[in-house]
Amino acid sequence: MRGLFIGRFQPVHKGHIFAISYALNSVDELVIGIGSAQYNYEFENPFTAGERIEMLRLALKEEGLDLARVCIVPIPDLHQHKLWVEWVETLVPKFDVVFSNNPLVIMLFEARGYRVLRPRLIEREKYSGTEFRRRVAEGGNWKELVPNSVAEFLEKIGGIERIKLLSAKT
Amino acid sequence: MRGLFIGRFQPVHKGHIFAISYALNSVDELVIGIGSAQYNYEFENPFTAGERIEMLRLALKEEGLDLARVCIVPIPDLHQHKLWVEWVETLVPKFDVVFSNNPLVIMLFEARGYRVLRPRLIEREKYSGTEFRRRVAEGGNWKELVPNSVAEFLEKIGGIERIKLLSAKT
Amino acid sequence: MRGLFIGRFQPVHKGHIFAISYALNSVDELVIGIGSAQYNYEFENPFTAGERIEMLRLALKEEGLDLARVCIVPIPDLHQHKLWVEWVETLVPKFDVVFSNNPLVIMLFEARGYRVLRPRLIEREKYSGTEFRRRVAEGGNWKELVPNSVAEFLEKIGGIERIKLLSAKT
Amino acid sequence: MRGLFIGRFQPVHKGHIFAISYALNSVDELVIGIGSAQYNYEFENPFTAGERIEMLRLALKEEGLDLARVCIVPIPDLHQHKLWVEWVETLVPKFDVVFSNNPLVIMLFEARGYRVLRPRLIEREKYSGTEFRRRVAEGGNWKELVPNSVAEFLEKIGGIERIKLLSAKT
Amino acid sequence: MRGLFIGRFQPVHKGHIFAISYALNSVDELVIGIGSAQYNYEFENPFTAGERIEMLRLALKEEGLDLARVCIVPIPDLHQHKLWVEWVETLVPKFDVVFSNNPLVIMLFEARGYRVLRPRLIEREKYSGTEFRRRVAEGGNWKELVPNSVAEFLEKIGGIERIKLLSAKT
Amino acid sequence: MRGLFIGRFQPVHKGHIFAISYALNSVDELVIGIGSAQYNYEFENPFTAGERIEMLRLALKEEGLDLARVCIVPIPDLHQHKLWVEWVETLVPKFDVVFSNNPLVIMLFEARGYRVLRPRLIEREKYSGTEFRRRVAEGGNWKELVPNSVAEFLEKIGGIERIKLLSAKT
Repeated sequence: MRGLFIGRFQPVHKGHIFAISYALNSVDELVIGIGSAQYNYEFENPFTAGERIEMLRLALKEEGLDLARVCIVPIPDLHQHKLWVEWVETLVPKFDVVFSNNPLVIMLFEARGYRVLRPRLIEREKYSGTEFRRRVAEGGNWKELVPNSVAEFLEKIGGIERIKLLSAKT
Repeated sequence: MRGLFIGRFQPVHKGHIFAISYALNSVDELVIGIGSAQYNYEFENPFTAGERIEMLRLALKEEGLDLARVCIVPIPDLHQHKLWVEWVETLVPKFDVVFSNNPLVIMLFEARGYRVLRPRLIEREKYSGTEFRRRVAEGGNWKELVPNSVAEFLEKIGGIERIKLLSAKT
Repeated sequence: MRGLFIGRFQPVHKGHIFAISYALNSVDELVIGIGSAQYNYEFENPFTAGERIEMLRLALKEEGLDLARVCIVPIPDLHQHKLWVEWVETLVPKFDVVFSNNPLVIMLFEARGYRVLRPRLIEREKYSGTEFRRRVAEGGNWKELVPNSVAEFLEKIGGIERIKLLSAKT
Repeated sequence: MRGLFIGRFQPVHKGHIFAISYALNSVDELVIGIGSAQYNYEFENPFTAGERIEMLRLALKEEGLDLARVCIVPIPDLHQHKLWVEWVETLVPKFDVVFSNNPLVIMLFEARGYRVLRPRLIEREKYSGTEFRRRVAEGGNWKELVPNSVAEFLEKIGGIERIKLLSAKT
Repeated sequence: MRGLFIGRFQPVHKGHIFAISYALNSVDELVIGIGSAQYNYEFENPFTAGERIEMLRLALKEEGLDLARVCIVPIPDLHQHKLWVEWVETLVPKFDVVFSNNPLVIMLFEARGYRVLRPRLIEREKYSGTEFRRRVAEGGNWKELVPNSVAEFLEKIGGIERIKLLSAKT
Repeated sequence: MRGLFIGRFQPVHKGHIFAISYALNSVDELVIGIGSAQYNYEFENPFTAGERIEMLRLALKEEGLDLARVCIVPIPDLHQHKLWVEWVETLVPKFDVVFSNNPLVIMLFEARGYRVLRPRLIEREKYSGTEFRRRVAEGGNWKELVPNSVAEFLEKIGGIERIKLLSAKT
């Protein structure tokens, strides 16, 4: 059985890895879709799709998860919500079940006949991309929100400076 | 070290798998880019990006290659050639070397400072998507051109009928 | 003589039908353009172009207006305002007069030489898509704002739940 | 019951009107989709969507068909065939049955669960847009291929000269 | 040596002309890029690219600068920031140095190896497009912010009324 | 009085410069539009808009023409012919007269009320981009078709090799 999990991963945080681990317990393979894939170097979307793939691979390795069981696919926004599920279907391998807690995503996939499972969330307010970017912009403790390998990667590519600069810009 | 190999994979054939095996001998990880990712259900581009990902995973498994060492990424056409290399860079993890025998691809990547290796080709005229689609359209032996797992997959999804119908249409 | 009336119709409300009746009194045929046609399943644009066509046809029938005298055409946004009037001209049959109360629409059509008539408005603050969506989101009386046939249609397709869900999302 | 019939209508010819009459015998309402709606002033696509709507309305009136029972909708190409059926669904009112003789169209709609009826064709080689444009370009008898009202309209808007000029251009 | 200076020029104001004069003192030729070139008739982007070219030419002439030494190029937004610098490179003649005070622009061009000079700014809060549009909308003294030739041009094309109308619209 | 002259300039050849000189004799300023501006690194469109601007400036200088009297503007294809003239109007300064020998261009501008002058052509079959690219691909004498400064520029940027490679690709 194959599952689908979609996020924007701006950046990959511990909440994502928790949900992915959870999903990998119930499916053989997991497609991880990277939403809004074409955007980057914006405060809301600081990282490229390629950088987000790299973060996911690092974090999955750190967590001891099997990379061969996941399939990471960038999904550009189409800006036509009604077509979005079928657009996803053309971009990723066939899947049987969807993991999501987003009401709109749940409605759209259920309307097309998919079973949608709600992964248990850990401290949702804390582990979120929005909170991460807020802490970076305000000089808070962002490191505790992401896996160590992601923190290292972000520092290596100058990702923290990038977010600060983009936050000033807005 | 990470390499990049790009194809359209319409469909995945033995020439692709030979080149990918070759590339995996010289790099730690290989990014496999799926070109013209947004097109499908056309005679030149019969399969969706998702179907092409699935074919690649099946063929790599059949060949005994380690899926954890590859990273398959759909790359939509941008229709602006001069920007294409940087477009690819935004979509895939950082890579050090490119595998290609296409003169335009070689020129574009070399102009941007990449080292480009030419994978040895096996019977190029025979193992090509063009030849495959021609054989299907004309009722020839297409099976010998693709790995067994790909042949099975194509039959399961009605891929042969699809190509025939699309060839009639053109 | 043919007239043009453009709205977003998210959803069709009594103000629209009042204005269309008014317009049909002064022209032989009326082109009804559906603006922002490509958007849907967003809080500001909950319904597809197809659903909006259906609502218009139901409401016109309910009002006893002659469907043969109207011509309903979806008009996708081009996001280039200066070209918008000519874009509309390529999509709809030739028209002689425009009905609008929107200052930007009036400026653009007049700049291209069209006569623009201002239809009398009934209780503009009340009969508007914005007010409708606000009432739905807040649990107010939305039914009195739309024709009966539209209310029934919205309930049949789950349109009220859709707006509530999209309002939560935003 | 509502049906769907799609054509490019470059221009509207007698074959179209024959098929539409046939379809209107078996459904209550017919959605007439105008394909490749955004193209115009090309040899293959000489007329705007608006001009095509006008030709359809004229020809339907000439044939004595009830305009209130049809719903004409321009459908821009999306250039993603797999998404095309759902794209059509977002643009037009809900329909129960499709009328088509195009193998790709039949495959795509049947794959999505629609019943597709094949309207009987009259002299298909003769009554086609391709044949019409060929005759115009070569100075042949184009008038016999289209309803009188369409011939008059084409002459009024300079449509014959337009096609000749575009044919020279190519 | 050739320089690059990019602005949106909505409209051209004295701050722009001051910076362009400054830049022309240190380079032989100056490419003036007009950003967000495709937008117009919006409150934030009231003028077309063509109108902005005209304003620039008028203001440069008024200032006594040599039009033969500048090269004005509209640059449409690509909405993909990481690709933006290379997109600019495909649209304008080769340049050696960039003039900018925008942190994001500076980061992007420096990341690609360009030298970026910061032109001295005069009364930045006062001489800005945002301030200009605010004053027009509120009936303030906008004339002192722009060169005389630009003020005349704006009055000739009805630019002030356009901004007022667009401000009301928003 | 201001004129407009549009070409693709792939590359700039002696026929272009002859026509531009002719046009500059009858107008005060000339807008030179670069068509299909977004395409490059294709056999039919080998050079970027920026490279084409540079060739134009070099050739005009070589011919002794006054750069201050011309205004060179890249014009991306919109792929909607009916909108093309108004699209051009949004991108360039207001013009009074058009110089063209292309029947479609003439039809479109005349339909919008412009006066179109036909510049006298010199040896049209010889001085054309198509002929230039053909000669490069086949190893013929391409140098005699372009101004000296353009020939030097093409050699400096590797433009001849680029065309050869792209011709092989096709």
